[in-house]
Formats: sequence, C-alpha cells, structure tokens
Amino acid sequence: MKLMPLGDRVIIKMMEAEEKTKGGLILTGSAKEKPEVAEVIEVGPGGLVDGKEVKMTVKKGQKVITSKYSGTEVKVDGEEYTIVRQGDILAVVE
Amino acid sequence: MKLMPLGDRVIIKMMEAEEKTKGGLILTGSAKEKPEVAEVIEVGPGGLVDGKEVKMTVKKGQKVITSKYSGTEVKVDGEEYTIVRQGDILAVVE
Amino acid sequence: MKLMPLGDRVIIKMMEAEEKTKGGLILTGSAKEKPEVAEVIEVGPGGLVDGKEVKMTVKKGQKVITSKYSGTEVKVDGEEYTIVRQGDILAVVE
Amino acid sequence: MKLMPLGDRVIIKMMEAEEKTKGGLILTGSAKEKPEVAEVIEVGPGGLVDGKEVKMTVKKGQKVITSKYSGTEVKVDGEEYTIVRQGDILAVVE
Amino acid sequence: MKLMPLGDRVIIKMMEAEEKTKGGLILTGSAKEKPEVAEVIEVGPGGLVDGKEVKMTVKKGQKVITSKYSGTEVKVDGEEYTIVRQGDILAVVE
Amino acid sequence: MKLMPLGDRVIIKMMEAEEKTKGGLILTGSAKEKPEVAEVIEVGPGGLVDGKEVKMTVKKGQKVITSKYSGTEVKVDGEEYTIVRQGDILAVVE
Amino acid sequence: MKLMPLGDRVIIKMMEAEEKTKGGLILTGSAKEKPEVAEVIEVGPGGLVDGKEVKMTVKKGQKVITSKYSGTEVKVDGEEYTIVRQGDILAVVE
Repeated sequence: MKLMPLGDRVIIKMMEAEEKTKGGLILTGSAKEKPEVAEVIEVGPGGLVDGKEVKMTVKKGQKVITSKYSGTEVKVDGEEYTIVRQGDILAVVE
Repeated sequence: MKLMPLGDRVIIKMMEAEEKTKGGLILTGSAKEKPEVAEVIEVGPGGLVDGKEVKMTVKKGQKVITSKYSGTEVKVDGEEYTIVRQGDILAVVE
Repeated sequence: MKLMPLGDRVIIKMMEAEEKTKGGLILTGSAKEKPEVAEVIEVGPGGLVDGKEVKMTVKKGQKVITSKYSGTEVKVDGEEYTIVRQGDILAVVE
Repeated sequence: MKLMPLGDRVIIKMMEAEEKTKGGLILTGSAKEKPEVAEVIEVGPGGLVDGKEVKMTVKKGQKVITSKYSGTEVKVDGEEYTIVRQGDILAVVE
Repeated sequence: MKLMPLGDRVIIKMMEAEEKTKGGLILTGSAKEKPEVAEVIEVGPGGLVDGKEVKMTVKKGQKVITSKYSGTEVKVDGEEYTIVRQGDILAVVE
Repeated sequence: MKLMPLGDRVIIKMMEAEEKTKGGLILTGSAKEKPEVAEVIEVGPGGLVDGKEVKMTVKKGQKVITSKYSGTEVKVDGEEYTIVRQGDILAVVE
Repeated sequence: MKLMPLGDRVIIKMMEAEEKTKGGLILTGSAKEKPEVAEVIEVGPGGLVDGKEVKMTVKKGQKVITSKYSGTEVKVDGEEYTIVRQGDILAVVE
C-alpha cells in the first residue's frame, strides 16, 4: 500500500531522535513551531496549485527540516507518515 | 438520484473503519484535523474557480485521504456522502 | 415582479422538506453549515466579478445543494427566495 | 447640489416601506444582513478599482436589492442617500 | 511649507460644519463610519501602488465625501489636514 | 558603518520636536497612528517585492511623514534610525 | 553536515552581543519585533515562491538585520542557526 500525494504535497517520515543525534543535528525551537528532521518518501507532481504554478524541488530520499505542527499525520502498514506542502519545508540537510 | 459536483468539488464516500483495517491503513491525527480514507464517487469539471484555472486530477473510484472536518455531508437514498474541494484531498491511496 | 441577479449571483428557492423526502434525498450536516436542496430560479450574467472572469454553469430549473446560511433571503409576491453566489453552490442534483 | 460617486460606487435611495408593499415585494432577512429595495440615483464611472477593471452594469432609475448595513449614508438637501459599491448590489427588481 | 502626498494618497481639509449647512449638505452616518465633506488640497501622482496601477481621478479644489476615521491627521502652519487614499473617497460633491 | 535597506525599505531618522516646531509643522493624530516627520537617510533599490514591481520615489534627504508605530528601530554608532517600507510613507514635506 | 535552504529562505547565524558592540551597532526595538544582527550562512535558490518570482539579493557572508522572532531556529553540529525568508531581512550592514 502506497500514498501518492497530490499537487504540491510531500509525504515525509520523521526521523528518530537517535539518528538525529548521530548526525550531529540537534534541533531547538520556539514553543510555537518546533522543527523536525524528516526523510522525503513521496513527492507530489506539482503543477497548478491554487492557480499558481508550483515546481517540485525536493526529491525522494532527501532529509529535510520542517515544522512539527505543519501537515497531517497518517499511519500506513504500521508506519507513521506526515503529509506537508513543499512550501512548509525549510531546508534540505546535506 | 445523482449528485454532480460543481467546479473543483469532489463527492467522496468515507470508508468503514473495518475496510481501512483490512487494507492495513490506520489513521492517526492531531485533534485539529483528523484524516479519513474515502472513495471518490463523482468529480467536478474543474475549470475557472475563483478566477483560477483548476485541472481535476483525482478520478472516480480512487481512494483518497482528506480531513474529516473539511466538506459538507449529504445523505442521498440512504447513503452519506461528503462534498469537498479537490484542494482538500491530501493523497491518493494506491 | 421579477428579480434579476447581478454578476455571479443566482436566485434559488428552497424546496419543501416533503419534496426532498419524495426524491429520496435527506440532508445531514454539521452544525456549522447545514446543506439544503433548492431550485434555481434565475442566473446572473457572470462576467467580471472582483476582477475575475466568472462563467455561469448552473441553469434555471436545476436542483442544487447549497448551504443554508449562505446568501440573502427575500420575499417577492409572497414567495421566499435566496440570493447566493454561484461559488456557494456545491452540486447539482440529477 | 449633486453627488458623483467615484470608481465602482453607486448612490442609491432606500424606498419607503409602503412603495415596497405596493410592488408586492416584502423583504425578510437574517439578523446579520437585512436586504432593502433602493432606487439607483447615480452610478460611478467604474474603471480600475483596486487594480481590477470594473464595468458598471446597474443604471440610474433601476430598483435594486442590497444589504441594509453595507454602504455609507449621507443627507443632501434634506434627502437621505446611501453610497454602496456595485458589488454589494445583489439583484435588480424588474 | 507644503505636503506632497505619495502614491494614491490625497491631502484633504475637512470643511467647517457651517459651510456644510450653507451648501445644504448634512451628513448622517452609522457609529462605525461617519462621513465628512472635505476639500481636496493635494493629489498624489498615482502610478503603481501595491503592484497595481492607480490613476488619480480627484482634483485639487474638489469637495469630496470620505469617512471620518480613515486617514491620518497632520497640522501644518496651524491648519489641520488629513491624508487619505483615493480609494477612501466615496463621492465628489458638485 | 552603514545600513543598506533591502527591497522597498527606506531608512529614516525621526526629527527632533524642536526642528518640527521651527518649520511650523505640528502633528496631531489619533491614538492609533501618530504621524512623525523624518529625514530619509537611505533608500532601498526597489524591484520585485512580494512578486510586485516597486519603484522607489522617495529620495535621500527628503523630509517625510510616516506613522510612529510602523517600522523597526535600530541604533547605529549612537544614532537611532527607523526602517520602514516606502508604502508606509504618507507624504513628502516641501 | 550542511543545511541548504529552499525557495526564498536564507540561513543566518545571530552574532554575539560583543561583536555588535565592537562594531558600534546597538539595537533597540519595540517589544513586538526586536531586530538582530546576523551573518548570512546559506542563501536559497529563489525562483517561484507562492507563484511569484523571487530573486535572491543577499549574499553569503553579509551582515544583515532581521527580526528576532521571525524564522525557525536549528542547531547543527553544536552551532545555532535561524532559517528566515529573504523578505524578513530588513537591511544589510556595511
């Protein structure tokens, strides 16, 4: 079973805190929006979203920083994912 | 009796919890927006919506994830449906 | 005496509950927006509305679903009508 | 003394309740927006309003339905008028 | 000393109540926005305002109706003026 | 040390009350927005701001009226400046 | 490990208070938005953001003034960074 995001949406999977520490990345944040490192699982096709052309620039497998409270969480086959808009992704971790 | 949605609207039918478990998809969500799996019943023609060109990409029979509290519920011939805008559909379940 | 709606407005007439039951359509809805079945009485000319081109797609005599609390009610020659924008019409009942 | 409205504004004069009853039109409305029948006295030139082209479609002498609480009231030579935007006019009474 | 308004701004001078009564114009209004008669003192150049082309249509010396609470008041050489946007001017008094 | 504003921003320096009185300009204002006379110190390059073309029309050395509570205050080498958007400048004092 | 910002985002690093004092720049500000001096670490590619073309004008290594409460804070390899949109940068310090 697979989720294919629509429009400018991206399916990401939050990474475990341990992995993050291994990579040397520790996130701090205001109470209002707490950023998280996540892996990109699926990328929507982009195209016209709210009448504006959106080109998708994130790629499957990239590690990205987004805000914890943006997006909608779903659980597929026992795994938890989050669906966000590309515009809610702040940066790619290289 | 049949409902034909206007513009970028889509008529969906929420799936039973049992079906969802069979397919291995269990949904979790924040209190604010609880996602649901639904089947697409009818798709509006798209075109100019609020002065912006909308192309419909979802298709009849697809299973989609949307938010429980988006849309308007109607009951036709004893069956409950929900009318949402295509932009409120997050992903297609394959 | 006749009402001619301006722009993207549509004059509709809410149908009696009995008629609705006859047709097999029973409406349920959240407290926030309770949908209603109505007949289209007059359709505005469309054209530029708020600087955006609007093409009218509903037609006189169609039965439509809209929200109870959208629009403005008027009584002409003893009959009650509602004036809504076409964008507030969710679906056509066939 | 005469008022010439600017842009998409229209000067209307609310009609007396008696006239309305004679014409067979009785208005009901929600507490939020109570519609009124008014006569169009002067029509602005239209043109660019907030960067959008507006074409004036109402004409002097037409009877129109608008909302009681939209617009600004002025009294000229003892007569009360209301200045509204054309977009606040719902329908023309024929 | 002189004030030159920028963009779509207009400098106006509220007229005395006596003058208004002489001209036969008495203003009434809701508590929310109380219209006033004012004389146009200076008109901005128009042009691109918030990315939209604005053409100035009011002229120096015209008497206009605007809302009391729109604009910013300034006192120059003992005289009080108000700076408003052209879009806040409702009508020209002829 | 020098501040170069970005986009449609302008660096201004509020003038002393004494200078203002000498020039004959006394400002009054509502509690909500109290205008101030300031000198333009640096002008941003303009160009695309929020996707809209902005052409800078104020010039270094001009005296302008703006609102006290718009903008951000900074202190450089002991001098206090304010950074505002050009659109927050109401008029030029000549 | 490196962060590459997306769209019109910029990664900045707040400068120590001591550095700021050395350079002669002391920032004051309203309670609502307290400006900060920061160094630009990485600049996003710009391009279409919310359907609008954005051209990046800030450059790596520049010192900029932004608002303390705009952006999201992250810690990479023990160093704290902030991710802001270019539009939240007020001025470049030269």
